[in-house]
Amino acid sequence: MQGDVETRLKELGIELPEAREPKVAKILGSNIAGNILYISGQVPQWNGEIPYVGKVGQEFDVKQGQEAAYLCGLNIIAHAKQALNGDLERIEKVVKIRGYVNSTPDLHEVASVVNGVSELFINVFGERGYHARTVAGVNVMPFNVAIEVDADFFIRT
Amino acid sequence: MQGDVETRLKELGIELPEAREPKVAKILGSNIAGNILYISGQVPQWNGEIPYVGKVGQEFDVKQGQEAAYLCGLNIIAHAKQALNGDLERIEKVVKIRGYVNSTPDLHEVASVVNGVSELFINVFGERGYHARTVAGVNVMPFNVAIEVDADFFIRT
Amino acid sequence: MQGDVETRLKELGIELPEAREPKVAKILGSNIAGNILYISGQVPQWNGEIPYVGKVGQEFDVKQGQEAAYLCGLNIIAHAKQALNGDLERIEKVVKIRGYVNSTPDLHEVASVVNGVSELFINVFGERGYHARTVAGVNVMPFNVAIEVDADFFIRT
Repeated sequence: MQGDVETRLKELGIELPEAREPKVAKILGSNIAGNILYISGQVPQWNGEIPYVGKVGQEFDVKQGQEAAYLCGLNIIAHAKQALNGDLERIEKVVKIRGYVNSTPDLHEVASVVNGVSELFINVFGERGYHARTVAGVNVMPFNVAIEVDADFFIRT
Repeated sequence: MQGDVETRLKELGIELPEAREPKVAKILGSNIAGNILYISGQVPQWNGEIPYVGKVGQEFDVKQGQEAAYLCGLNIIAHAKQALNGDLERIEKVVKIRGYVNSTPDLHEVASVVNGVSELFINVFGERGYHARTVAGVNVMPFNVAIEVDADFFIRT
Repeated sequence: MQGDVETRLKELGIELPEAREPKVAKILGSNIAGNILYISGQVPQWNGEIPYVGKVGQEFDVKQGQEAAYLCGLNIIAHAKQALNGDLERIEKVVKIRGYVNSTPDLHEVASVVNGVSELFINVFGERGYHARTVAGVNVMPFNVAIEVDADFFIRT
């Protein structure tokens, strides 16, 4: 029997990317400590292809930035699913996300960009999806990706 | 009967702002997971007005940046109080804060700026106020605010 | 009897710096809450001297940035050891690190820079050293240091 979150993903027509392990270094895509599942900073990739390389405010506008944030969010969910052996129902809540937007210095809508992932989580996880958040605009990112987002989940152990 | 922290706030003549929920997206100002209370990144606002829009090193000097950091800190305490149903005594300790200063690239005193909130926490929470900290200077912030600070508290559940 | 981690440090010929408390404000180098040991953002210093002041991509190349990251990592281990009263065996795992590289806007290898600390942790802690990670390139750091890294450890209480 599928859980609520999987049902919701299906209803929303959302397909998850592969949970790709980071190519650089031997770091982990996710790590569990006690009741917290930590997801590494995810970039806007789809199975290894990165359609969002460049700065929001320059190569991309805010709407495209939101799409990039959404894609980071899909990768976060994919990693969470893998870390939980496929059972997204073990997620009690999304605790906190941090969004780092690769921005021009005059892009004041960085919070709006990160909404692309915040809204995804609320749509997918419902009440469990509401989260605390921190956002900053930074001047460069790994591989010059447009945005990186990490997340902490509170889980049933 | 008022607890120590409320007494201390009164002695210091500190009035807290309203704990405003973020205007953008449906994210939370705070979130509790187990024994940790996570406060979302707070900007230097007072009940919706933001007196610190601009960069430290340009529109603001280090002293003004510290005042902005202090104001972020008041909003953090206000959110903590709301999350704990008014009982700040449930805070066992301030665990960690992260300060992101909207800086010009030549502003090397970013740590000094964030002292505005660190000193507030030590003044208000006493021994419980000492915390670990991470600081970075970033090139743009939501609404171009001068600084954003988030915090994790260890609480009695 | 020395534990595995100390033995490994010795085998690798690694000497730890002093665990210096931050000079600015009365903040802590580390803080324990429950099973998590939080290390404050560490800069590339050796007992108070900072050989890496400047930007990666300008004053320093990627390889030098990695050396700076490695030095941050040594300071993280030194603080962890002090926080654990000398017993690094209490570390169950490195949970998460966050690396903020003081970068020029065209430095796309920021993840590669932070590998300097990721690889150190895997070398020193073995299986326990694999970690989740978030990386961003920022436009200025305290004292203009080349990189700052913080870390969360899962510990036996």
